[in-house]
Amino acid sequence: MPLTDDLNSLSAAYRRVRAFTEQLCEPLEIEDYMLQAAVEASPAKWHLAHVSWFFETFLLKPFLPGYAVFHPRFDYLFNSYYEQTEAGFWPRPERGLISRPTVSEVYAYRHQVDEAMLRLLADCPAEHAETLQARLAIGLNHEQQHQELLVTDIKYNLAHNPLRPAYRADLPTAPVRAPVPLTFTAFEGGVHSFGAQPEGQGDSNPSSPAPSFAYDNEFPRHQRLLEPFRLADRLVTNAEYLDFIEDGGYQHPGLWLSDGWAQIKTQGWQAPLYWEQLDAVWHETTLGGRRPLNPAEPVCHLSYFEAEAYARWAGRRLPTEFEWEHAAADRAVEGHFVDAARLHPTPAGKGALQQLFGDCWEWTASAYLPYPRYRAVEGALGEYNGKFMSGQMVLRGGSCATSRDHARATYRNFFYPHERWQFKGIRLAEDLA
Amino acid sequence: MPLTDDLNSLSAAYRRVRAFTEQLCEPLEIEDYMLQAAVEASPAKWHLAHVSWFFETFLLKPFLPGYAVFHPRFDYLFNSYYEQTEAGFWPRPERGLISRPTVSEVYAYRHQVDEAMLRLLADCPAEHAETLQARLAIGLNHEQQHQELLVTDIKYNLAHNPLRPAYRADLPTAPVRAPVPLTFTAFEGGVHSFGAQPEGQGDSNPSSPAPSFAYDNEFPRHQRLLEPFRLADRLVTNAEYLDFIEDGGYQHPGLWLSDGWAQIKTQGWQAPLYWEQLDAVWHETTLGGRRPLNPAEPVCHLSYFEAEAYARWAGRRLPTEFEWEHAAADRAVEGHFVDAARLHPTPAGKGALQQLFGDCWEWTASAYLPYPRYRAVEGALGEYNGKFMSGQMVLRGGSCATSRDHARATYRNFFYPHERWQFKGIRLAEDLA
Amino acid sequence: MPLTDDLNSLSAAYRRVRAFTEQLCEPLEIEDYMLQAAVEASPAKWHLAHVSWFFETFLLKPFLPGYAVFHPRFDYLFNSYYEQTEAGFWPRPERGLISRPTVSEVYAYRHQVDEAMLRLLADCPAEHAETLQARLAIGLNHEQQHQELLVTDIKYNLAHNPLRPAYRADLPTAPVRAPVPLTFTAFEGGVHSFGAQPEGQGDSNPSSPAPSFAYDNEFPRHQRLLEPFRLADRLVTNAEYLDFIEDGGYQHPGLWLSDGWAQIKTQGWQAPLYWEQLDAVWHETTLGGRRPLNPAEPVCHLSYFEAEAYARWAGRRLPTEFEWEHAAADRAVEGHFVDAARLHPTPAGKGALQQLFGDCWEWTASAYLPYPRYRAVEGALGEYNGKFMSGQMVLRGGSCATSRDHARATYRNFFYPHERWQFKGIRLAEDLA
Amino acid sequence: MPLTDDLNSLSAAYRRVRAFTEQLCEPLEIEDYMLQAAVEASPAKWHLAHVSWFFETFLLKPFLPGYAVFHPRFDYLFNSYYEQTEAGFWPRPERGLISRPTVSEVYAYRHQVDEAMLRLLADCPAEHAETLQARLAIGLNHEQQHQELLVTDIKYNLAHNPLRPAYRADLPTAPVRAPVPLTFTAFEGGVHSFGAQPEGQGDSNPSSPAPSFAYDNEFPRHQRLLEPFRLADRLVTNAEYLDFIEDGGYQHPGLWLSDGWAQIKTQGWQAPLYWEQLDAVWHETTLGGRRPLNPAEPVCHLSYFEAEAYARWAGRRLPTEFEWEHAAADRAVEGHFVDAARLHPTPAGKGALQQLFGDCWEWTASAYLPYPRYRAVEGALGEYNGKFMSGQMVLRGGSCATSRDHARATYRNFFYPHERWQFKGIRLAEDLA
Repeated sequence: MPLTDDLNSLSAAYRRVRAFTEQLCEPLEIEDYMLQAAVEASPAKWHLAHVSWFFETFLLKPFLPGYAVFHPRFDYLFNSYYEQTEAGFWPRPERGLISRPTVSEVYAYRHQVDEAMLRLLADCPAEHAETLQARLAIGLNHEQQHQELLVTDIKYNLAHNPLRPAYRADLPTAPVRAPVPLTFTAFEGGVHSFGAQPEGQGDSNPSSPAPSFAYDNEFPRHQRLLEPFRLADRLVTNAEYLDFIEDGGYQHPGLWLSDGWAQIKTQGWQAPLYWEQLDAVWHETTLGGRRPLNPAEPVCHLSYFEAEAYARWAGRRLPTEFEWEHAAADRAVEGHFVDAARLHPTPAGKGALQQLFGDCWEWTASAYLPYPRYRAVEGALGEYNGKFMSGQMVLRGGSCATSRDHARATYRNFFYPHERWQFKGIRLAEDLA
Repeated sequence: MPLTDDLNSLSAAYRRVRAFTEQLCEPLEIEDYMLQAAVEASPAKWHLAHVSWFFETFLLKPFLPGYAVFHPRFDYLFNSYYEQTEAGFWPRPERGLISRPTVSEVYAYRHQVDEAMLRLLADCPAEHAETLQARLAIGLNHEQQHQELLVTDIKYNLAHNPLRPAYRADLPTAPVRAPVPLTFTAFEGGVHSFGAQPEGQGDSNPSSPAPSFAYDNEFPRHQRLLEPFRLADRLVTNAEYLDFIEDGGYQHPGLWLSDGWAQIKTQGWQAPLYWEQLDAVWHETTLGGRRPLNPAEPVCHLSYFEAEAYARWAGRRLPTEFEWEHAAADRAVEGHFVDAARLHPTPAGKGALQQLFGDCWEWTASAYLPYPRYRAVEGALGEYNGKFMSGQMVLRGGSCATSRDHARATYRNFFYPHERWQFKGIRLAEDLA
Repeated sequence: MPLTDDLNSLSAAYRRVRAFTEQLCEPLEIEDYMLQAAVEASPAKWHLAHVSWFFETFLLKPFLPGYAVFHPRFDYLFNSYYEQTEAGFWPRPERGLISRPTVSEVYAYRHQVDEAMLRLLADCPAEHAETLQARLAIGLNHEQQHQELLVTDIKYNLAHNPLRPAYRADLPTAPVRAPVPLTFTAFEGGVHSFGAQPEGQGDSNPSSPAPSFAYDNEFPRHQRLLEPFRLADRLVTNAEYLDFIEDGGYQHPGLWLSDGWAQIKTQGWQAPLYWEQLDAVWHETTLGGRRPLNPAEPVCHLSYFEAEAYARWAGRRLPTEFEWEHAAADRAVEGHFVDAARLHPTPAGKGALQQLFGDCWEWTASAYLPYPRYRAVEGALGEYNGKFMSGQMVLRGGSCATSRDHARATYRNFFYPHERWQFKGIRLAEDLA
Repeated sequence: MPLTDDLNSLSAAYRRVRAFTEQLCEPLEIEDYMLQAAVEASPAKWHLAHVSWFFETFLLKPFLPGYAVFHPRFDYLFNSYYEQTEAGFWPRPERGLISRPTVSEVYAYRHQVDEAMLRLLADCPAEHAETLQARLAIGLNHEQQHQELLVTDIKYNLAHNPLRPAYRADLPTAPVRAPVPLTFTAFEGGVHSFGAQPEGQGDSNPSSPAPSFAYDNEFPRHQRLLEPFRLADRLVTNAEYLDFIEDGGYQHPGLWLSDGWAQIKTQGWQAPLYWEQLDAVWHETTLGGRRPLNPAEPVCHLSYFEAEAYARWAGRRLPTEFEWEHAAADRAVEGHFVDAARLHPTPAGKGALQQLFGDCWEWTASAYLPYPRYRAVEGALGEYNGKFMSGQMVLRGGSCATSRDHARATYRNFFYPHERWQFKGIRLAEDLA
């Protein structure tokens, strides 16, 4: 039985998401697919295979009768971190040390999975329709997350090369001009609701491949008490962050969290990732190559420690994830996403609460912890989000490498406070008297 | 001018706190004072000197005219982590590599500081009385914190010795008997206030050397919304934790946070710190030496990861720091503290909410983050608490190594989730329908 | 002016050596060129570029008027370890993290260098003819060394892949049969001469691209006193080494040097590199893929520690490099070299002193130290051999990955005692009463 | 039966050597006994116990009927590296983390061992007399080696303290004056004999506690061919080494072995160990405290890499161990030893071949390898010397921390080329045309 109502749209969504992954890889040389210049920056080839393994493992093997896996060891090579599957997994730091399967074999793997997935969608066993649809939604959102990682990992891996090769030399650049002035929008306090609506009661993002989808970590919807606050109308710019640097921001321990100061001393941080001075002029390596810094662009590729220290220096603070969600809850999901094909954050326009979605993920002051009464999904898929709930901080909003239909106001992204290779920026907040 | 109202009581408090530090060291051999078996377990000699450096730096040098420091390099040797003082500090991992000053020279240092402090308290410059009194309160509370660290560090450092020497062979032990059954106390939800009262509006702990004292991280008092919950009436016991181990708790990745599972694999954890099997019988190394496990005693010396995994296995969860504070707010500060001279957690009696204070610090589900509108103290003393607000979890309640007059319901202790060498245990919570 | 006498032969030698490098790469996929699975196992792409950089740096830039380098940063990317050149060098552990230049750009680099080199050879400035000829000899021998490294690094890098892909599935294999019995040849003691003959006084290897060539570390010829000894007529076999393993060789510390025993404990060595048991049968991963162990083949891919421990267990010892050279001095340079295209050591035939050249490099008991009155070449080329004269051991004879015309009796190869990824085996020796 | 002939002298030697160990510890504070500021610089307390364990293990347990060990776990705590004894050993890097047994308990251990040893010597079982006498010789020489380590480890451990405490503030210092000029003594080449005489055929050092004693690594006596050479008449001085530093010695990679250059870059070496500049004046920390550099004193506390680089810079080379032994063979064993109680090398006087013994161990150009036909002692004692024969270099002559009766011309000391904490200096050599 086909998943009647949604069949066409599901298959179309599947084709669209899968095709976009491959489209992102088009500018790559075969050699680029192999790079892993840091443990967290996986090779493009691995991403291509891993997202296919996800469909093979959680949909094809359990639900498509007679499905024969592409290769018996891919279960081991392309599992990421699911401890509860049988095969175990190849060590993450060594993903770049596997030349075979070749890139072309990985594409053949993708194509076998695609063909089988479309067959499964076209003739789904009725008794599994609900599970299958839920897992398909996860699978497509999972692939969209890896599309963002593909972009950020390619950026990191190419930028590690001292020749600073461009991923796409044809990317558009923003005109150099002064940033719009920094203004704030005020919000009253009070008890408000947060988190995703139960299915059917609200759409997270109507253009999404799985419109009412939200991850388990966005549930359950619950109430919190907010105090009155103001939220900046745009992200902090390169020009403003440069003031912080020139004021000795990286030299004053009093501005920093203790763990952040330790990073400065051991890693030698003196500026955001990808910044370097050439002949006394600050440059930034982008996916379009190395460019002089544009003062109006949002500052990007910062750790939580840098975002938090900047806010302290500026006499402000970072917003909590709930302040951010409260401000964003009824705003349209608009901004510069990966669909805009700029692959770099764009200067803000005028107006209230610009750049909430897209451009840069925004560090919040909230630790990544479960919502009250949170329950992880059963089985290996329950490892997707829940097991990472320690030591990380929440980011909100999406970036220039996020798909527009992957973003929503309740979305909780999370990274360790020292990590800088994603497109991460700063939106300031402050208390209202 | 003396600090008239409080002079006698301040001097008495000073004498009492300082004397207790030295009393804790009485069972030590000279050689024991040198031990640092892990970076975080500082030598007793260093603790003795560091707390004196604190009074010298923040009270004697600024406020006692003509005070001459005991030694010009102690500023460097015995500063802990204050980045904003001039001298810098000796590397923390090498505190055990300094044989000179000798133990007896460190005691001479203490006595010079004590003599000068008592002179300062007896004749305080009027214009600095308020600052001085505030810093004295911090200094005494600081020394009480180091008294607890003295006990836990001595425990760690002696237990590292394969001979497992006892700190005090004469410590009393609890009778071996079955634990009291596990019951829960229910709490309604609603908006409640949390954090310390502004000075003069409430006593944190009336028997404290600085009765209305609270650290800056307990301020400001503010409101939160709680959902209905139940809190266990006692701590989890050794017997219960042993069930978890025997059920394969340390072998099932599905029970663990990802960072916790990584610890298990790299550190080889299979039981709490200080547990070992001898001839198939579980033993625990205590400050009184190695003993067979007492099933009714609270399980202790656990990481957050272990506490959290145990709670998941038990079908419960850890409480938030606010649930804990709400439950403890109007309870008397009673329990087995360091004053009881048992130096080990004691089996619970019957009744509601036993063991809230003393016995073991209780891991909460709350990350250590600033309260809304939190402001750190100005200057180097502002590094005391605020700069540690990332990556750590809050613990509440105090332990068998805490002074009774150092505990209070609003007190926020904090440690990294992997740390186990403090007296840390588990109190379960659960949601109310 | 052409280097008249030798012009044709020099150009021919140059073409021949350069072509063989590229021939060795023919079986590779583009992805394979990127692999660096250990610091010492450089990517094929890097080898291809580095040997070209050598000619560009030491011949084309100084001697070919108007020569324009292929790329201004290749000086930095493809220098290996010459500290006395200006550019510095890219960190060795990160050679696999450079996807650009691509493989095809590296081949373009090679071809530019080749075209320029042939022009230089065709029209050499007379005043530099001698220097140029000397450097050409070094350059060609250098490229031959890297051909061997190409083979051994490809082997290591492919074998790291859990799929164990073959470099060439069509390689011939030796028939499985019993080894020939182990016999010894006796030598009298006395004062003998060692090291390379001064140029013109003897040919090192008449078929070499630079027939009278020897490295500076083989000079000067000098005398040593040998005691009477016997040398094994063939290499130790897999069957014999398996006896050592099965007798608990890797479990008895008394058989091992202290540094070797530390390797066993930290690296977990239980067999030679590339050996693994599948269903209780020992297999070996070769360049032709994984195969069951052939008992008659020489044991290979051993550290010095393993060779030395085996000899002790066998009641024998390793020969010194001088005993080996004395035995080999008047033997023809014959054996299974890379030219035989087997790429694996071959079982010995009967007769005295089999396998002296080719098959496996033979660990000697001699530390790699300068000969009396040794002088390194002046300038950066002096770093070629001399600066490695500490901590390494000498190997003699050449392997199945060495070019026949690169081998000679005075050749001193050297590696650290823990290194195993070259084709290294064992020839036993013993004292004569 | 007493070991009649030698009874008095053996007991006297035993008492004398054992007493000297304790005498060396007299200036220590209890705290100093605990220090281990580097893995290789063991605590004084450990040395005191380990040398006693040696007698207990190799003499008392096998030969004294009814001997009861002092403590059952000392076998584990105070074994150094003997893999073939049953107990295993406590990790070497953690020798400073054992406060119990206390210093006074370790002295009690020593006294029990002494009392038992003297009983054993007074009534030795006849059938074991020979073994016992041999082991006693090893035990006493072993203790003398640890006396030297005691001195050098105390120096390292105290100097690590930023207060630079003196071990003995009363040590004499040499007058500051110009060094004597550097002259050389010439030696003819030829075949000569090296190594210790078989017992009874020659005295190694007639004042030794075991006069004809030599370690197994000095055997067998054998012949070598030397080429003509010249040997410097004194050690290189501080003044000469300072010229090397000021000429940029530590900045020119061309002067250094590759492994040495790596040390400079990773360890930041810019001068010998213990040198530091205060207000632009070079000082040296000695066992008598920190002093301005004396230009005439031998430069000391150098790695092999520094000694070798200095020799290259000076246009000379290091001697081989055989050149050194040939020069020293018929010289009296005279010099500044530990018995002189200066504990620092002393400026040379005039004359041929000054300072051959005492002052500083002299790095040779020889790797530490077995002599032809070398056989290690059977059993655990065979681990004493033989298992260290890889990766280390030979030093000759003895130092200001060596006992005069422990030195002899055939003595082979050995250390890794990067190690600097022993008293190690440079004697230059050169080839004779």
